[in-house]
Amino acid sequence: MVHPATKVTVIAEQLLEDAIIKLINESGATGYTTVKGRGKGQHGLHGGKGRTLVDAFSIVKIEFVMKDRDKAIEVAEKLSEKLFVQQSGIIYLSTVEILRPTRF
Amino acid sequence: MVHPATKVTVIAEQLLEDAIIKLINESGATGYTTVKGRGKGQHGLHGGKGRTLVDAFSIVKIEFVMKDRDKAIEVAEKLSEKLFVQQSGIIYLSTVEILRPTRF
Amino acid sequence: MVHPATKVTVIAEQLLEDAIIKLINESGATGYTTVKGRGKGQHGLHGGKGRTLVDAFSIVKIEFVMKDRDKAIEVAEKLSEKLFVQQSGIIYLSTVEILRPTRF
Repeated sequence: MVHPATKVTVIAEQLLEDAIIKLINESGATGYTTVKGRGKGQHGLHGGKGRTLVDAFSIVKIEFVMKDRDKAIEVAEKLSEKLFVQQSGIIYLSTVEILRPTRF
Repeated sequence: MVHPATKVTVIAEQLLEDAIIKLINESGATGYTTVKGRGKGQHGLHGGKGRTLVDAFSIVKIEFVMKDRDKAIEVAEKLSEKLFVQQSGIIYLSTVEILRPTRF
Repeated sequence: MVHPATKVTVIAEQLLEDAIIKLINESGATGYTTVKGRGKGQHGLHGGKGRTLVDAFSIVKIEFVMKDRDKAIEVAEKLSEKLFVQQSGIIYLSTVEILRPTRF
């Protein structure tokens, strides 16, 4: 038997890793996973003229799963507001199914 | 043209990697991908009093895709029962779409 | 508020990384993320007798998100045709939700 849940994925420059994990810990998520990689993305003021494409910088991809979709969206929006207004980085949510809802 | 399939994601301590891959190979999946990372999660007896949060241990994230959703759930449940009763780790399923169903 | 988008995931041998990124850049995607890992999959002619299972070779997992689902499928099919006819590798699409549609 499977139960719906929401996964939040945050992709950001490594220098933001500690700030992201702090916010995730404060959100009530029971865990997270971090993987290192490289990426290309938009850098600079969101929507502003200062935005440039930065190629292949070091990134972290941080994911966590929450049972409560509304709570997951709330945390994603908080991360987005706090971290990504003047920094590159993206956040997306995915619907997943979990086996053991007591773990989340 | 795309075809529905189910992705199973297993996040576990590295010491469980070989056991997880053995079970995936036995399940009939045609492949898997492993990525190393770090994570925080619940550790100890599932739901028990011995459970503590362990921060930032080394983890593997192992993923495989199966065309048959029921089979994917069955493999996920088997992995969960065999590996995660007294160990930290999570499993979740996602619906994906594949291009070449003969590959899976 | 969240907005639907499509994530494309490409898992391939590392030697294909540059060719994949070139195609993604040409597709109009605003960014991508690359993570290194290991994998097992089918190798050789697609569906042909020469296909063998290759265990634990070095892979890259490359992901990008597009707002336009039809465009994402088109890019995925182009990647599949150009890169995976005689090479191992898989591509799958997932529906995700994004917070800031102007970033994609």
